[in-house]
Amino acid sequence: MKLHCFGESGHSYKAALSLTLADQEWEPVFVDFFNGGTRTPAYLELNVMGEAPVLEDGDTVLTQSGVIQDYISSKSGKLGGKSAAERREVLRWLFYDNHKVSSIAGPLRFIMNFLPEEKRNADVIAFLSGRLAGALKVMDAHLDGRNWLAGEELTIADIACCSYLYYPEDFNFDRKAYPNIDRWLDAIAAQPGWKHPYDLMPGSPADRA
Amino acid sequence: MKLHCFGESGHSYKAALSLTLADQEWEPVFVDFFNGGTRTPAYLELNVMGEAPVLEDGDTVLTQSGVIQDYISSKSGKLGGKSAAERREVLRWLFYDNHKVSSIAGPLRFIMNFLPEEKRNADVIAFLSGRLAGALKVMDAHLDGRNWLAGEELTIADIACCSYLYYPEDFNFDRKAYPNIDRWLDAIAAQPGWKHPYDLMPGSPADRA
Repeated sequence: MKLHCFGESGHSYKAALSLTLADQEWEPVFVDFFNGGTRTPAYLELNVMGEAPVLEDGDTVLTQSGVIQDYISSKSGKLGGKSAAERREVLRWLFYDNHKVSSIAGPLRFIMNFLPEEKRNADVIAFLSGRLAGALKVMDAHLDGRNWLAGEELTIADIACCSYLYYPEDFNFDRKAYPNIDRWLDAIAAQPGWKHPYDLMPGSPADRA
Repeated sequence: MKLHCFGESGHSYKAALSLTLADQEWEPVFVDFFNGGTRTPAYLELNVMGEAPVLEDGDTVLTQSGVIQDYISSKSGKLGGKSAAERREVLRWLFYDNHKVSSIAGPLRFIMNFLPEEKRNADVIAFLSGRLAGALKVMDAHLDGRNWLAGEELTIADIACCSYLYYPEDFNFDRKAYPNIDRWLDAIAAQPGWKHPYDLMPGSPADRA
């Protein structure tokens, strides 16, 4: 399988880490996002949404990280939950992530780190930081007394919700303020085969420095 | 089935309209969001995420509109797509909605209409308005030459993505600026049994006036 992705993209990381932890053969195709790589006619033909990641598996072309994660767990029989109820719980946290976690953390980190300083609006940063803190507080409460977000084992739900939380750039996220999230991030990172996004996918701020 | 919901909630509308157009028996349970109804201990016991909607079907309690929509289409055999590929396409637009459409339109409309005027931050409104316009432009392009977002028939994907777009309050959304979305919204509203969110669920600004 081929995954169109780039290191700075937490959404891509959800797919890349799911492929890796489900023991799937895959190779990355670098998307040059910072030079307009998701805005070319060829890329928009691949994905009208103009986003990474895109997964190609033969003739099957999939976009949206949640769909790709669901496909990987179905194809591999791994990371997807053991029953219909567990699968719904997995899907619940995938939606929560897309709605409240990575959809906020992504733009917030982008604004605070990758926009020119004069375009970093303090009110927007404060707004997004407040939204993110609220979402993480819910996750931290849910993880109290639990090892994983959905069910008894690591699933794609954990891989979705953690996706932006390993990045080193400042986006007003302090792991130590969320003790259950802190422990859970360590537990995910201890999985055999786990890699940091900048090690798992091509492209990082260091490459562009 | 019982749906915990309120009229102003586009996320609730996705579930309520899916239940209605899939010909399911359901009744609404009013969530008094504007008086803290999603923050009570009892509600947080029902849904740690502190959000509406919540669907109760016997002992099954489901949260996240996307999970509820998926459950309704599975249970009814309606509105969910005809093949594995169509179901993935449906799921793709459900995630797109949660990531880029209703997750932006919801807070934007809330800030512009339901927050006290002194709390309506112009920079945040401009930021969210730009994000929403970008997301709707993609949807409008995708709907060019198509009747529905995913597949040949109306699905829960359409019901998700339209959820905030019928509301009368100003949130910098002008239907006429998106001709394909405008046509598609008319087509959804022409479905037998369709109702406006303020007619389908209890609670509206008029009730609080």
